[in-house]
Amino acid sequence: MRILLTNDDGVTSEGLLTLAKYLSREHEVVIVAPESERSAVGHAITIHVPIWVKELKICEHAKVYSITGTPADCVKLGVDVLFREPDVIISGINKGPNLGTDVIYSGTVSGALEGAMSGYPSLAVSSADYQNPLYESAAEFMLEFLKSFDFSSIPPYTALNINVPAIPYERIKGWRFTRQSKRRWEDYFEARVDPFGRTYYWMLGNVIEDDEDPDADYKAVQEGYVSITPVSVFLTNESYLKKLKTLEPRKE
Amino acid sequence: MRILLTNDDGVTSEGLLTLAKYLSREHEVVIVAPESERSAVGHAITIHVPIWVKELKICEHAKVYSITGTPADCVKLGVDVLFREPDVIISGINKGPNLGTDVIYSGTVSGALEGAMSGYPSLAVSSADYQNPLYESAAEFMLEFLKSFDFSSIPPYTALNINVPAIPYERIKGWRFTRQSKRRWEDYFEARVDPFGRTYYWMLGNVIEDDEDPDADYKAVQEGYVSITPVSVFLTNESYLKKLKTLEPRKE
Repeated sequence: MRILLTNDDGVTSEGLLTLAKYLSREHEVVIVAPESERSAVGHAITIHVPIWVKELKICEHAKVYSITGTPADCVKLGVDVLFREPDVIISGINKGPNLGTDVIYSGTVSGALEGAMSGYPSLAVSSADYQNPLYESAAEFMLEFLKSFDFSSIPPYTALNINVPAIPYERIKGWRFTRQSKRRWEDYFEARVDPFGRTYYWMLGNVIEDDEDPDADYKAVQEGYVSITPVSVFLTNESYLKKLKTLEPRKE
Repeated sequence: MRILLTNDDGVTSEGLLTLAKYLSREHEVVIVAPESERSAVGHAITIHVPIWVKELKICEHAKVYSITGTPADCVKLGVDVLFREPDVIISGINKGPNLGTDVIYSGTVSGALEGAMSGYPSLAVSSADYQNPLYESAAEFMLEFLKSFDFSSIPPYTALNINVPAIPYERIKGWRFTRQSKRRWEDYFEARVDPFGRTYYWMLGNVIEDDEDPDADYKAVQEGYVSITPVSVFLTNESYLKKLKTLEPRKE
């Protein structure tokens, strides 16, 4: 297969290059990735300034383009200009999980959603440990998954958000199809004073995992399974919309 | 009411200041907004560098904080530090619509979704014309809407994405509860060569509006109604998840 790879940790990141190495055993791989880290960049795109592209010779397993943009930019420029008509688009391997509300902030997931909007089978993949990611394990899983999964079943505007537990490949119990959970961050800010007397703030947070849903994404990972969540770009709260529609319309 | 205002066009933008002026007639308004334009920034947050805050004396109708961050940062820092426990969070008025897949890229909508995740009634508001927005009309609508709508009905993790047609307030026909449509951009890139011989690319695009859904957000606006779409942070494609669950599980 012809695979377009991107990520949000930047073109030189270990997760990306490890995945390229593994996938290149069986596939043609082209990397289009941000020149610098773009974590937590969400689904940003670059519309007011142009995008520069540089070809880098940093990987023997794939052609590598570094661009001055976001993961979503990489996918747009990738499929439009640099590597047309890939068979699959993969964003990752991210350093750390993209579970629960992480999905909303994730540059990795946005790369895959952009691919889905462009009409290609698209996957986001993360090694679910911030401190000790295990890229080899996630890369081996992806190589296996590409052989096993029927991508033609993926509906339009939908991508797969894959989180691989950071354990050796042999110990992974399998995969589970899951639902994006309510897992979230409780933020707080630490105020400091800079050398010029101005107050500045660091954003910090703790994870809260209290979702009752047995299909919650993070539970699969906790139990040693790969979590695979189908995510779409449509955010409508359908049940609330139904309720709103019963309200008396105004001025109609 | 105590209203926290943010936006993605930046703290000095006309849409934001017009809304502050109108709302201040009946409410206490505090602005926490990005110091520079952050359009199409998606749901980015600032986690690797700190955030600076500056109080600006640029508006007689509201206290104004300018911060070196994104709309999502503004809401987090707003409710945690600068203006605790607001009754409502409003993001806007955006210059131009946030309809269909715009929602995914929109800094304006992400401000409201961040507010919803923090547990506050949260609204995104846009004047639905890129070239000729009509902020007075949208601001007057918002003042009216705040009086009429029961915010306690909004479920957790859900915000309202409001698009006001850019026509005089008197000509607005009312409001409709709608669904996020498949309205999308067909992108293309224009390549140029910079004075140093390097190729760079501008992202350009055309809007495609071909959604058959009678409840499509953009149709309400086209017909002279305010479009109100309840949007949530949960992206799971439920119908596809159901289908995937029927597939034979692997290694389980």
